Amino acid sequence: MSFDQKEIFSLMYKLARLIVPDTRVEYDAQGAIHVPLDRMYGPLTMRSLTKFPIGGTEERMPRSVIRAMGMVKKAAAESNKVNGMEERLCDAISEACDEVISGKLYDEEHFPLVIWQSGSGDHTNCNVNEVIANRAIKILGGLMGTKEPVDPIEHVNLGQSAHDTFATAVRVAVAMDLQEKLYPSLRMFAELLGKKSEEWKDIIKTGRTHLMDAVPLTLGQEFSGYQQQICNGRCRLDGSLSRLYKLPIGGTFVGTGYSTVKGFNERCAKRLAELSFLPFVCSPNCFESMSSCDALVELHGELNTIAVSTMKIANDIRFLASGPRCGLGELILPENEPGSSIMPGKVNPTQCEAMTMICAQIMGNDAAISIGGASGHFQLNTFLPMIVSNVLRSITLLGDGINSFCVNCLKGAEPNKDRIASNMMESLMLVTALSPHIGYEKAAAIAMAAHQNGTTLRKECTKAGIDKQDYDHWVCPEKMLSPE
Amino acid sequence: MSFDQKEIFSLMYKLARLIVPDTRVEYDAQGAIHVPLDRMYGPLTMRSLTKFPIGGTEERMPRSVIRAMGMVKKAAAESNKVNGMEERLCDAISEACDEVISGKLYDEEHFPLVIWQSGSGDHTNCNVNEVIANRAIKILGGLMGTKEPVDPIEHVNLGQSAHDTFATAVRVAVAMDLQEKLYPSLRMFAELLGKKSEEWKDIIKTGRTHLMDAVPLTLGQEFSGYQQQICNGRCRLDGSLSRLYKLPIGGTFVGTGYSTVKGFNERCAKRLAELSFLPFVCSPNCFESMSSCDALVELHGELNTIAVSTMKIANDIRFLASGPRCGLGELILPENEPGSSIMPGKVNPTQCEAMTMICAQIMGNDAAISIGGASGHFQLNTFLPMIVSNVLRSITLLGDGINSFCVNCLKGAEPNKDRIASNMMESLMLVTALSPHIGYEKAAAIAMAAHQNGTTLRKECTKAGIDKQDYDHWVCPEKMLSPE
Amino acid sequence: MSFDQKEIFSLMYKLARLIVPDTRVEYDAQGAIHVPLDRMYGPLTMRSLTKFPIGGTEERMPRSVIRAMGMVKKAAAESNKVNGMEERLCDAISEACDEVISGKLYDEEHFPLVIWQSGSGDHTNCNVNEVIANRAIKILGGLMGTKEPVDPIEHVNLGQSAHDTFATAVRVAVAMDLQEKLYPSLRMFAELLGKKSEEWKDIIKTGRTHLMDAVPLTLGQEFSGYQQQICNGRCRLDGSLSRLYKLPIGGTFVGTGYSTVKGFNERCAKRLAELSFLPFVCSPNCFESMSSCDALVELHGELNTIAVSTMKIANDIRFLASGPRCGLGELILPENEPGSSIMPGKVNPTQCEAMTMICAQIMGNDAAISIGGASGHFQLNTFLPMIVSNVLRSITLLGDGINSFCVNCLKGAEPNKDRIASNMMESLMLVTALSPHIGYEKAAAIAMAAHQNGTTLRKECTKAGIDKQDYDHWVCPEKMLSPE
Amino acid sequence: MSFDQKEIFSLMYKLARLIVPDTRVEYDAQGAIHVPLDRMYGPLTMRSLTKFPIGGTEERMPRSVIRAMGMVKKAAAESNKVNGMEERLCDAISEACDEVISGKLYDEEHFPLVIWQSGSGDHTNCNVNEVIANRAIKILGGLMGTKEPVDPIEHVNLGQSAHDTFATAVRVAVAMDLQEKLYPSLRMFAELLGKKSEEWKDIIKTGRTHLMDAVPLTLGQEFSGYQQQICNGRCRLDGSLSRLYKLPIGGTFVGTGYSTVKGFNERCAKRLAELSFLPFVCSPNCFESMSSCDALVELHGELNTIAVSTMKIANDIRFLASGPRCGLGELILPENEPGSSIMPGKVNPTQCEAMTMICAQIMGNDAAISIGGASGHFQLNTFLPMIVSNVLRSITLLGDGINSFCVNCLKGAEPNKDRIASNMMESLMLVTALSPHIGYEKAAAIAMAAHQNGTTLRKECTKAGIDKQDYDHWVCPEKMLSPE
Repeated sequence: MSFDQKEIFSLMYKLARLIVPDTRVEYDAQGAIHVPLDRMYGPLTMRSLTKFPIGGTEERMPRSVIRAMGMVKKAAAESNKVNGMEERLCDAISEACDEVISGKLYDEEHFPLVIWQSGSGDHTNCNVNEVIANRAIKILGGLMGTKEPVDPIEHVNLGQSAHDTFATAVRVAVAMDLQEKLYPSLRMFAELLGKKSEEWKDIIKTGRTHLMDAVPLTLGQEFSGYQQQICNGRCRLDGSLSRLYKLPIGGTFVGTGYSTVKGFNERCAKRLAELSFLPFVCSPNCFESMSSCDALVELHGELNTIAVSTMKIANDIRFLASGPRCGLGELILPENEPGSSIMPGKVNPTQCEAMTMICAQIMGNDAAISIGGASGHFQLNTFLPMIVSNVLRSITLLGDGINSFCVNCLKGAEPNKDRIASNMMESLMLVTALSPHIGYEKAAAIAMAAHQNGTTLRKECTKAGIDKQDYDHWVCPEKMLSPE
Repeated sequence: MSFDQKEIFSLMYKLARLIVPDTRVEYDAQGAIHVPLDRMYGPLTMRSLTKFPIGGTEERMPRSVIRAMGMVKKAAAESNKVNGMEERLCDAISEACDEVISGKLYDEEHFPLVIWQSGSGDHTNCNVNEVIANRAIKILGGLMGTKEPVDPIEHVNLGQSAHDTFATAVRVAVAMDLQEKLYPSLRMFAELLGKKSEEWKDIIKTGRTHLMDAVPLTLGQEFSGYQQQICNGRCRLDGSLSRLYKLPIGGTFVGTGYSTVKGFNERCAKRLAELSFLPFVCSPNCFESMSSCDALVELHGELNTIAVSTMKIANDIRFLASGPRCGLGELILPENEPGSSIMPGKVNPTQCEAMTMICAQIMGNDAAISIGGASGHFQLNTFLPMIVSNVLRSITLLGDGINSFCVNCLKGAEPNKDRIASNMMESLMLVTALSPHIGYEKAAAIAMAAHQNGTTLRKECTKAGIDKQDYDHWVCPEKMLSPE
Repeated sequence: MSFDQKEIFSLMYKLARLIVPDTRVEYDAQGAIHVPLDRMYGPLTMRSLTKFPIGGTEERMPRSVIRAMGMVKKAAAESNKVNGMEERLCDAISEACDEVISGKLYDEEHFPLVIWQSGSGDHTNCNVNEVIANRAIKILGGLMGTKEPVDPIEHVNLGQSAHDTFATAVRVAVAMDLQEKLYPSLRMFAELLGKKSEEWKDIIKTGRTHLMDAVPLTLGQEFSGYQQQICNGRCRLDGSLSRLYKLPIGGTFVGTGYSTVKGFNERCAKRLAELSFLPFVCSPNCFESMSSCDALVELHGELNTIAVSTMKIANDIRFLASGPRCGLGELILPENEPGSSIMPGKVNPTQCEAMTMICAQIMGNDAAISIGGASGHFQLNTFLPMIVSNVLRSITLLGDGINSFCVNCLKGAEPNKDRIASNMMESLMLVTALSPHIGYEKAAAIAMAAHQNGTTLRKECTKAGIDKQDYDHWVCPEKMLSPE
Repeated sequence: MSFDQKEIFSLMYKLARLIVPDTRVEYDAQGAIHVPLDRMYGPLTMRSLTKFPIGGTEERMPRSVIRAMGMVKKAAAESNKVNGMEERLCDAISEACDEVISGKLYDEEHFPLVIWQSGSGDHTNCNVNEVIANRAIKILGGLMGTKEPVDPIEHVNLGQSAHDTFATAVRVAVAMDLQEKLYPSLRMFAELLGKKSEEWKDIIKTGRTHLMDAVPLTLGQEFSGYQQQICNGRCRLDGSLSRLYKLPIGGTFVGTGYSTVKGFNERCAKRLAELSFLPFVCSPNCFESMSSCDALVELHGELNTIAVSTMKIANDIRFLASGPRCGLGELILPENEPGSSIMPGKVNPTQCEAMTMICAQIMGNDAAISIGGASGHFQLNTFLPMIVSNVLRSITLLGDGINSFCVNCLKGAEPNKDRIASNMMESLMLVTALSPHIGYEKAAAIAMAAHQNGTTLRKECTKAGIDKQDYDHWVCPEKMLSPE
């Protein structure tokens, strides 16, 4: 844009404000466009907003992505400073980025674009460039929309393209949300399961295989299995992080790094690591990192596995708590909301229900992500906004859901010791303990009698002339909890 | 609740307002709870809000579900009036329902609950009951939260349970959104494809199978296939509606209809049909309609098929428009936003990208819905909020996405006639038309020569002594567009 | 191929048999290739066999596809006869087709190609052409591999291409398998559920919502819901058939019909309808039918819904049969195989397990099919073999699985009347029936006492001075099974 | 079984052979059943065969599972020997196991059961017990079916249950198949991509983003991205193996280890490690390992990611090879089978098609596996046969598919250097290199002129008076391949 044009624009800008007080006029390669006066974004954002009216605010590009874009732009500005970009511009940009990173500008609705836009996240890159430029212009005392003294392309986007910045930002956003939203919940979940496992280590109960009564185990052992599942889940995530931490920053348009200067990428990655406290490094191969989303597909595969684990656990817990009279009735869940006011003991396992719904959602998200991941072409995957929005939603739902499940359900769950004991004693599976003492066939006959008469093994043994003391000595669930 | 308790409550209510000005105190079976003064919901909503802090406002129960709940409650109130519920209460409830139906109360944030709650939608049913009761109380000059003269359970929920009302409302919500959000887009899409097919019926182009050059067809024929796909999609949806229109209203808790009176269900269904202008009827078997979500699973299967069709069409269009120089280059898409300002003709197919991302999302939603649908137990499916939120999101995204795609891309798409013609003339597949005239082997030899020399068939024919006029007469793509 | 070449081939053929007794040599455009002497396929099949060594015999193109290809080739031959192809050739081809249709040639391993081949099914089309040509040659007294007097391309494939024949055959195969393998099982399933529903219409049991005890219904009502689900499933399939029955035969390479003669397609479709007793017609738009698999995607969506229904039903049944002591114990399943020999009553619900595994498989197949359906390009979908193999597998597994489930499990399932009655009588949910007679609060107090003391409502009512006869008159589950 | 019964059985066995020559009669807890004389399996297998007629031979329990079961049984027998089981019995069992491990007995059809059976794999455990017992009986000179001197339960199954043996065997089977079938293919794939990347490192081509022309990169760089994807895939698998290697052997029925002796599990795991050359160890928590399939769900998530990568690569390659005239035409694929004989250069990318179909299948398998993994209850997951069959199928298809793709397509792929160069030179994206020399606006004007006139940048520069030598010096794609 020549100096003359800029001068003209500046005058027209002032004129437009006089004529239509609530908007200003901005310009891009396609010409003039009205922008709301109180918004910091510019013409490219405005065009995307007009051309992609898909869903409402609930379909907005997630806050975490915008925060990460702010960090990328800050790292780039500071890196460009080293390479000679004017210091006061860099500093103003960096300061503006801080307001993006803090979420302030997102909450003030300067980032209105939806997920369903350019598949490279190009529009969001433009949105971020425009907002940062305008905010920096204001910091420097300029007039928003004039691109003076800060130009969204020439300064904020210097040495970058939508392709490498957005692909970098999504990795940063996912890695940070994992730490902030999911890891604490997973830790709490595993610890709580461990605590329950320890507390309940002496409560012997009937096992169940094929949904049928089986030999005993302790309630603590049962919960130790759940704990192991969640600990494994944590390890699964950890294993995939090394690939997530590799950032394509500096790859610019197609991965070659053309139009950046040497060292730019490493300075950016280092700064992003500092800003996030996470061990980000440069991708060793930007062609891979920009044309594929494999790192996100892999990571969500691990989230999917955790959802699979969690669905099993939440299902078990609600079945164990089913009843109060006509179900299994072995657990009592805390009553968070009135169930049936006239029907005591009908505590609906609503936390389990929310949890399992979330798990099903995550399993669906996994399919969407895989399809998107497989559908890139050549130097770019154009399903990235869809993919990252699903990964971030899965992290939030899993994190919030597990947290709610732990605090409002698991923590207050208590064993129904009477029911567990009566189930245990009624179970015919204890017959396996009789067999070594009275022989297989006699034992089987006693079990069959109990089954047909609806009585207990102990009663039938007594009938069959077996001493009660012997019975109690032989049929001892405590001895059935480990190898001989 | 006895009269004494109510009097006490009323006094405490006033007291609480004096002490904590921004809240009032409400009561339920679990005791007192503070509720924001400017919200119409009550204690049950408040408890769910506290106990299910999962996701933010973007995870709210969709507006369409609340609207449909308003309609269900209105139909029930009017039906109860016939059965003797006090007229002025019914009328006040019905009037309050109108504000739910219009969306006013949703937009004023009286329905803050998220999807991730009780799996039967119980909390939303309570939320709706409380808001309608309080609104009706206000209409009748009473004091919000006193349940006087309108009780959320005894009046608003009379003859209903969460199970049948929510299961009814989700069907109503889906059926209405289909009509309002998706059908118009599908119609526009089919019409536009038909228009293009007609306009372009004489533009002959190379066909492509296995991505390789094949015998010719017209651009109009190609687009007629797309049109057929979308018309079929419409028929697919239509076919599933008869099952969607069967409402379980009146089934109450488990499908037996216990605690309603005869005729209640039919009056409700009739009223819902009037309110929605859709042919809703009573389900012939509420056990099926309340314990399964099959009608929603089926319907989303049709949405999935439409997404599959649309993904193919949008993919074709962006490949046909690829280039401008190094791609297929047969279509020119409208330039909605500046691509590369220095690089003319680089119009990124961003509408195709948004569209295909949406299709992938819908395919993922389908997996989540199927998992939820298969996971119900006994008399209830407790994945219903998750399922309906996915169905409604798919409808919105598909509807908005197709609309945006049509208006901002397909409508302005133009054929690049030069490129289409040069592709056509360069294609060696026309050799099949030579064969009947000069024999298979000679034709093959000429094609091979053209392939090796990088020339056209015409040039090689001339070299081989074939008359140019004969060539032009024989090799006539126009004759290759239909059976002899 | 010139006459001279053919003569040479014939001599070489004889020579090759003398030198390598177990093979013969055949020729195609790429040259000579050895073919096993006892196989009727030719060089193109042989090349695919060599170049696609993916999986073993379990990955073969399904028998039903080959049968349908035989029908397509027969219909084409008879149609070509009308257009003047030599009668004795047509008749020989038609006769050879009969052996393909009967499955004889498939079972004799003349169709060894796997699913994982050309995405258009091209290789299978070649395989079929070669086998039919060689079989017809033998019928006419010729020498296999000589293409005399029947040429696989010039005669068997006349007026066809891989694209339209294979796309036609997959529709025929699916439609026929549906009739033969799935519909009878669905009918048996619905009838059996109806029979159980009728037989058990007076067995009152506790309802269960949120897995918790709820108001009663009859076992017959519960099963009537299942019956409705399966009847609906049948309707769902029916609704999609009209689109499946539209065949792209005669569309040849790209849907234009070029290289066929007018009327060919209609004659073929008519003949296919006769051969299959199904109402096949010509597709009104071959561009749609050849470039998309939407009809298969849609149909499998319906299979997916049926799998969703069936998974719910089989899950319910195994939970209802869980125990014998520590589960719900309301159903007794037939004992098909010894469970634990020493543990009477431990009948593992293995038929339910096989059934639910099948349902999960079908839900996975649905994802694969949708991805394939969305991934076609331009005039061809090259995921067709994968798609059809999944659809056919789903049909077989669902058909066989439901059949096995019905015969070996559902048919012999019996209610455990004692357990159902004791569950019913212990349930505190009956308290709702007390309320109109003694008031809500007194009723609630009695329920609470029963809950805390672990007693029945009846016992607590007696304690509270309520006459037993009154109790039995008031608390009458029979009255809770329908609206007043 | 008492001695008398055995004697009677032995006599009846001989009698039955005399009466029905092709069968023998065997007995189990449910009574007598005829078994084919030439099969080594016994009554439990026979019952499953009769009761689960689902699919044909293509639905058989995979060979790899049976092999792994043979290894588990061998390890158990040798472990039992240490604990005092009679030496000659152990040795005979161990010898029989060798024939299971070698595949001999599978190929001779002694393991006919299908996947769709007991969800714990119980029937296959019985099948294996029976075959090994009968084979060991024969080795010891006994009579098949007499259970003398080797009893399938008392000896072959000693210290085991279906639950821990099958859950162990599926992990062993998957780990071994990975090593044998997938890792070699992945290695070949990565090496070949690396080789191409190296060979083609100097071939400069146009980049493509959004499917549109972009700045250049080398063909070698493009393929280096593919190589990185596959190398990452290998790392992904490696990361999940540590969890796969943890075997639940010795957990017996519910994970407690009841009915085994101390040390049994560790001896078994050690022996399995020796037999397989893989680092198997005992699971630290059998409750987790027996009640969940998380390790398999996770592993298949990694396979899914590899499928996602491979789909992208195979798609790119077939698009790059599209043409020969009307596509991108930058790669030339080897001609494996005659395409259109008259149409030279029409080499259909059938290997890419088979590969992408496989990838879609694997993505579908992933959904089925996740659903199964999430659907276990209490101490057992009863979707294990379905899950393992999908994991093994994915491994085979991916391994075979990649191998076929490498050998028959990638290896022989060659760049079409002329087309690549002409695409490169025609691309207007090189204009970005002009800008620093003649200014942004002049450069843009030249690009626009070239676009409108359909000429090259070079031609328009010449027209505009720019020296050709300057142009060639400035516009130098070689300088656009890396940062400055």
